[in-house]
Amino acid sequence: MSNVTVVQGGKRSLKSRAAKVIPGGMYGHQKADQIASGFPQFIHTANGAIIEDTDGHEYVDFLLGYGPMVLGYHHPVVEEATARQRKLLDMSNGPTARMVDLAEKLVDMVDHADWAFFAKNGSDGATTALTIARAATGRAKVLVERGSYHGAATWSTPVTTGIVHEDRANIVYFDYNDEVSLRAAFKLAGDDLAAVIVTPFKHNDGGFDQQLIDPAFARALRDGCDAKNSALILDDVRCVMRLNEGSSWAHLDVSPDLTVWGKAMSNGYAISAVLGTDALRDAATSIFSTGTFWYGGVSMAAAIATIDELIRIGGTQLQERAGDRFRDGLLAQAQTHGFRVNYSGPSQMPYMRFLDGAHAELNLQFSKLALDNGVYLHPKHNWFVSTAHTDAVVDRALEGTAKAFTGLAKLT
Amino acid sequence: MSNVTVVQGGKRSLKSRAAKVIPGGMYGHQKADQIASGFPQFIHTANGAIIEDTDGHEYVDFLLGYGPMVLGYHHPVVEEATARQRKLLDMSNGPTARMVDLAEKLVDMVDHADWAFFAKNGSDGATTALTIARAATGRAKVLVERGSYHGAATWSTPVTTGIVHEDRANIVYFDYNDEVSLRAAFKLAGDDLAAVIVTPFKHNDGGFDQQLIDPAFARALRDGCDAKNSALILDDVRCVMRLNEGSSWAHLDVSPDLTVWGKAMSNGYAISAVLGTDALRDAATSIFSTGTFWYGGVSMAAAIATIDELIRIGGTQLQERAGDRFRDGLLAQAQTHGFRVNYSGPSQMPYMRFLDGAHAELNLQFSKLALDNGVYLHPKHNWFVSTAHTDAVVDRALEGTAKAFTGLAKLT
Repeated sequence: MSNVTVVQGGKRSLKSRAAKVIPGGMYGHQKADQIASGFPQFIHTANGAIIEDTDGHEYVDFLLGYGPMVLGYHHPVVEEATARQRKLLDMSNGPTARMVDLAEKLVDMVDHADWAFFAKNGSDGATTALTIARAATGRAKVLVERGSYHGAATWSTPVTTGIVHEDRANIVYFDYNDEVSLRAAFKLAGDDLAAVIVTPFKHNDGGFDQQLIDPAFARALRDGCDAKNSALILDDVRCVMRLNEGSSWAHLDVSPDLTVWGKAMSNGYAISAVLGTDALRDAATSIFSTGTFWYGGVSMAAAIATIDELIRIGGTQLQERAGDRFRDGLLAQAQTHGFRVNYSGPSQMPYMRFLDGAHAELNLQFSKLALDNGVYLHPKHNWFVSTAHTDAVVDRALEGTAKAFTGLAKLT
Repeated sequence: MSNVTVVQGGKRSLKSRAAKVIPGGMYGHQKADQIASGFPQFIHTANGAIIEDTDGHEYVDFLLGYGPMVLGYHHPVVEEATARQRKLLDMSNGPTARMVDLAEKLVDMVDHADWAFFAKNGSDGATTALTIARAATGRAKVLVERGSYHGAATWSTPVTTGIVHEDRANIVYFDYNDEVSLRAAFKLAGDDLAAVIVTPFKHNDGGFDQQLIDPAFARALRDGCDAKNSALILDDVRCVMRLNEGSSWAHLDVSPDLTVWGKAMSNGYAISAVLGTDALRDAATSIFSTGTFWYGGVSMAAAIATIDELIRIGGTQLQERAGDRFRDGLLAQAQTHGFRVNYSGPSQMPYMRFLDGAHAELNLQFSKLALDNGVYLHPKHNWFVSTAHTDAVVDRALEGTAKAFTGLAKLT
């Protein structure tokens, strides 16, 4: 990573140029009007767990591109595997042999998986899973957790501007770990239930505590689907290769029918997957879901290399170790400065929020002060650690957060 | 490209391995049960206009990954630009400067475009355009050509297995170049019309003749949208950078409000775009449409390099020259052997079908014989030429098709 700030595209700032040619200056995860002032909008380069914005500021990154960079940026094993496949072929009229290699690997790793299907976006995977469930059952309704994020398809996107009533007409909502609401949703769906889709644990955006799944609730999801012969879909996009080497529910005595993978499966190369049981193979064969770039071999080579490397180095334990170290440090700092916080979620995907006073404002102020001191923490979205978050990197981050807590104590 | 067949993944064939771990053995464009016997399912490597399958057979490729490889496979200028950006950064928490560079380029190139929005799949772009139109108008209905392909979203996918009634409840169909059907569709949508989406010319899959747009029909689309204050969306995904350096309707006195780009804009790197007018900027800002990998800088660097290189070398003219040479050669061969054929569409994206007897069967037989003789032509989907289809490459292909015609004459 260069220590020299590169001014790109002439004298005008990127933000002022973007304001002219990009709606609202930026869309998506980082809509310009939703980025707190002080948050970098454009990233220039990155290595390991460190990113550098286009103004030359470096940060220890705990967002990792909203999850994918599980081995850190520019991981040599992944880059070598992708370079090798790229030299042969990325995309053409059909897939490369890497598709079969990857499908075999996933079927081998994930207990309930008998087949695999690949797409580009997590949203593609989630929608394809719904379509497979509907094809299998001939039914329409899908149970979805209120407030959960399953992508930006018209049935799932969290903002409903431009979304029509019919896009959600078959969605029935329930609350996480709330069996009463789940029973009501099952009842409402009646005999038209195609599927239930659920995340491995509650990791909703917006500044909420995370919640691990109650095993009894997972069992109730399975039993409810079994009673109606509906499909249970695990949306593992955000969690995959973080909690387990396999399904994020591998520790539970509850097996989904379909699982959606994405994000950390490929260390930053665009790919998602749907995994399913033999019982749903014919349904998966009967639907039409495709995209021009979905056969691309490079992202499949990336996924193979990422999964193999994570298994080789004990990636989930390394993430847990880094996450534990960061949590312990942060909580000690919070206590030192007299801030009450709640630290929730697994160590690999934590989130911390302030409990006192204007907590959303405190979360934001703390994130901004962390940024000022070289640590990228999202104020409203869960964080991620990677295997590149070594003890030294975590300690560097904790030096920054110590200064952020000091600054916050002065402000409040 | 190696001349040695590489046996990948052990002794069992890729097809038999895929049959176990991929639904139906393959999905999407190349569903295993839809690939005619003899068509290669897995591609090993490619260079320029030549692809090599995993059995070591070489073909002059006229499908180009269903369109994207407009400069040919492994084009050095695109590969160098992507390698440079990849060394800096592909994806992170925000976009790279390449997003602004590319948005400025597209706004500069396309007359009606005041802003640009980027996604991964053409389907993402088309659905985002619909959502923007609905956000702008507060209305639901969309006019769509019967049989046209706008991607694999639930509202557009050509197979309706697993698709629910509500997904199409707001779609009203019309026929291409048929003003009577268009007027009826406008009438049916009443005062709830958000948008009309249309391809630059009729290039429907399934073995149909292509049709250029009647300028009067384009004008009727524009007038109908103006009368209702609805958005006219040009789905330029398949045609972009083939007919014009800019919008594929640049030659018409009809300007769309939104245009969807994809495929050939980036020579094989996964990206799509929506371009729009100032009048729709606020609506585009108000919606939520995103994906984990959408900020990726490498595919944006690919798009910049692809567009620049196509302009530098006169890419549309080179494609036209190659397409003309191929057409003239094929038509002469058809005449020599006494086959009546219809050759339709622009030279850059042609399609040929047989007119006599069991023409679908003849199309298929001819494509298989062409494959046997080293030429990859799709029997039911339009073909593409690239700037790598030099005179020598086209002549090599024509040697193959000459043998295919000879073979077909023997069969019939």
